[in-house]
Amino acid sequence: MSKVITSREQDYSKWYNDIVVEADLADHSAVRGCMVIKPHGYAIWEKMQQALDKMFKDTGHVNAYFPLFIPKSLFEAEEKNAEGFAKECAVVTHYRLKTDPNNKAKLIVDPEAKLEEELVVRPTSEAIIWNTYKGWIESYRDLPILVNQWANVVRWEMRTRLFLRTAEFLWQEGHTAHASKEEAVEETKRMLEVYADFAENWMAVPVIKGVKTANERFAGADDTYCIEALMQDGKALQAGTSHFLGQNFAKAFDVKFTSKEGKLDYVWATSWGVSTRLMGALIMSHSDNNGLVIPPKLAPTQVVIVPIYKGDEGLKKVSAVANTIKKKLQDKNISVKYDDRDTQRPGWKFAEYELKGIPVRIGLGERDIENGTIEVARRDTLTKEVIKIDEVEAYVARLLEEIQTNLFAKAKERMSNMTHKAETYEEFKKILDEKSGFVLAHWDGTSETEERIKEETKATIRCIPLNNPAENGKCIYSGKPSSQRVLFARAY
Amino acid sequence: MSKVITSREQDYSKWYNDIVVEADLADHSAVRGCMVIKPHGYAIWEKMQQALDKMFKDTGHVNAYFPLFIPKSLFEAEEKNAEGFAKECAVVTHYRLKTDPNNKAKLIVDPEAKLEEELVVRPTSEAIIWNTYKGWIESYRDLPILVNQWANVVRWEMRTRLFLRTAEFLWQEGHTAHASKEEAVEETKRMLEVYADFAENWMAVPVIKGVKTANERFAGADDTYCIEALMQDGKALQAGTSHFLGQNFAKAFDVKFTSKEGKLDYVWATSWGVSTRLMGALIMSHSDNNGLVIPPKLAPTQVVIVPIYKGDEGLKKVSAVANTIKKKLQDKNISVKYDDRDTQRPGWKFAEYELKGIPVRIGLGERDIENGTIEVARRDTLTKEVIKIDEVEAYVARLLEEIQTNLFAKAKERMSNMTHKAETYEEFKKILDEKSGFVLAHWDGTSETEERIKEETKATIRCIPLNNPAENGKCIYSGKPSSQRVLFARAY
Repeated sequence: MSKVITSREQDYSKWYNDIVVEADLADHSAVRGCMVIKPHGYAIWEKMQQALDKMFKDTGHVNAYFPLFIPKSLFEAEEKNAEGFAKECAVVTHYRLKTDPNNKAKLIVDPEAKLEEELVVRPTSEAIIWNTYKGWIESYRDLPILVNQWANVVRWEMRTRLFLRTAEFLWQEGHTAHASKEEAVEETKRMLEVYADFAENWMAVPVIKGVKTANERFAGADDTYCIEALMQDGKALQAGTSHFLGQNFAKAFDVKFTSKEGKLDYVWATSWGVSTRLMGALIMSHSDNNGLVIPPKLAPTQVVIVPIYKGDEGLKKVSAVANTIKKKLQDKNISVKYDDRDTQRPGWKFAEYELKGIPVRIGLGERDIENGTIEVARRDTLTKEVIKIDEVEAYVARLLEEIQTNLFAKAKERMSNMTHKAETYEEFKKILDEKSGFVLAHWDGTSETEERIKEETKATIRCIPLNNPAENGKCIYSGKPSSQRVLFARAY
Repeated sequence: MSKVITSREQDYSKWYNDIVVEADLADHSAVRGCMVIKPHGYAIWEKMQQALDKMFKDTGHVNAYFPLFIPKSLFEAEEKNAEGFAKECAVVTHYRLKTDPNNKAKLIVDPEAKLEEELVVRPTSEAIIWNTYKGWIESYRDLPILVNQWANVVRWEMRTRLFLRTAEFLWQEGHTAHASKEEAVEETKRMLEVYADFAENWMAVPVIKGVKTANERFAGADDTYCIEALMQDGKALQAGTSHFLGQNFAKAFDVKFTSKEGKLDYVWATSWGVSTRLMGALIMSHSDNNGLVIPPKLAPTQVVIVPIYKGDEGLKKVSAVANTIKKKLQDKNISVKYDDRDTQRPGWKFAEYELKGIPVRIGLGERDIENGTIEVARRDTLTKEVIKIDEVEAYVARLLEEIQTNLFAKAKERMSNMTHKAETYEEFKKILDEKSGFVLAHWDGTSETEERIKEETKATIRCIPLNNPAENGKCIYSGKPSSQRVLFARAY
């Protein structure tokens, strides 16, 4: 049992923070609201990036890179987008520091190096990208443009939490341009499917796919599609969004194309993104009071082998077998670490790898070798099994798949158990307070009702689920008629 | 012959810019000095990243991520480093925009959202990283720390050139911490070797390894090692640097460790980086008047197949064979594009792929299929050969290796031809003006002489080559005694 992690039951929020910090995923930095992503955390993010990047390329996208800065005049061009992000923009106003005349060891901003036009540090890149696309697009032959960018963005948040909400975060943002509305809508939905596929089949995090209400839409979008996940504490987490931007940015930046028929029209747009926030979703979906649990498909190290021995001779004997096992597992494309450091004891290592979420741990001792057996421990269930050494690679390969499947099944069952239906506002509030989780309820379709419910209960409409069954009912708040239930929850 | 590229002979600088823009590598953006890296350019950068990242990991390094912003008080802690970069720092002073009260469609910086302490957009990350390492290091057990970061950095340059010098650029920066000076020096040299290996064996760019003079050292380093390449116009380009930082940053940020013997000492540091500037080196090393030439190992697409046909039946026939060839090549891990677009003619495609530097082009026509032959064109020599279709995969695999080798050999020969020895200052200046290139000459070891030569000739000491032969002589400028020649050149 790890001593450093606060238990979920005692303080869920502290439990989360303890895992992030103690499992060496990330830490606060000297810059307000900005995090340091530590090597173990970054290695998981790299695995996510690789999987997503392949999915983007398999669906025809290419990567590019656009400037970090957006001149204020471009930033304000698409009014809704600008209005939505203006309150959280970091702004560069000067381009030089100089020695403080009153203290030679200090620097001050050089007042003579003031920019003529301020630069916004990108909170999202639609403006700079659509200003660039203007030069790339003349005719339908230049379309579609299917570009993605991996980048850092900055949104000045007042209350921050590691991975979930930080002033700077890492993400990818896809920005596509199309000749027709149909094609752009299709792209928006395609990328939502890619995100759902990634969340469920790589992160082992079940999600609800849906579309946001007008209130919760991305600033500048005509429609925002999203995937919503449910954390262990019953709060929802928006895990990815895909926006149909209509012709809003094309109009703001005057981006027109000549169609096959020779007609001039504005270009249709989408944008879609997921961020290091996914790390938060991953951590909160699977981890327990002993620390982090990583699904095998995203684990930088899938198997760790810890030797248990006495003296140099013992280590030599164990290492020979351990290295053979390591080689066999690597031949099956399993990532393995053999930890033969002599600076730490086996018990310390066991606790360390449990805390860090390594899916499978193999303890290998001299007696095991004599018996031809080894002990294999799985992180998800914390159970151990003794198996024959000869069977190790087949066993571990199967076990990794089983852990991946099991984590998803467990999370899916939890989500299902925590999804409720409310028929009245009283019931709705009672569920939120006593059970938490997703609540499916009727809503009259107005922003007013949505806002009132949010003010009174802190629950928001996470989405109108796709393929939502038609069901006549009455809005839980206003009593007005409704034709479908929408998904409510308190959210991160 | 491509019409869009200015020839090298006519205007070398314009030739370079034309290739960058017309081969779709990068373009200027609406932000002063910042570039847009276009998909074709970014794909080459991704290939570079992958190769380098593997080399870093194979030498024991891991990736992490540190904040974009550095509080001014941290930035100024290491005085030399701060002084060196102060003049080119973009500074964030505010964290909010608001609607302009005089014009509702405009935004202004909210004067009430002024930061208490200004934030520097990182020009390099030593300060923020060593401030972080302070919390990671207590004893020798915590060392070495071998961390790399892939990131964007900003240095406000007055005169910018795509890839070579831009206000924002992408790079990797390694930051390592060690328990001894010897280990840190060893690391510094190890990474220099990695860079030289990458430049020569991936980029096909020969380099001179050396150490910088005090004048040319990285601000805050005790020693800067570098690799220097020579461009076609005879100007040098610094392609990568590896710095031994001594205990300078450990002292500035008070980072101490307890040694095995229980002694408290400051930690030893290195940092090393290469950037998107390498793209400039790649372009200028191999390209010609027809456009870009990419070494096969860094080409996102190594082979393009262009069908030549009449009518749908013809295309069907050619496509069947083309797809078989494509499959066979892909099975050999060769990246292939089959361009069967019907919106462009074969001649247009030929010119396009020549301009974009695709190493091998296969033209496949109906008559070829009847003859059982195909025409294979190589980009480096612009020669073509007709070979039997059955032999295509073996031939192309061999050809790609040959192109890689040939590009390096050509560049190496050019560098050798353009490396001169000067015995007098007159001769030195004459070489620079009439032949250009590297000049090996004696120098008295003083900064004064170095500065004078720079002022008078614009040539700088690129490096003191490693394993430099001892040779007694007289400084070309002062006539004072010298024990070795150093490498001079005019540089990018």
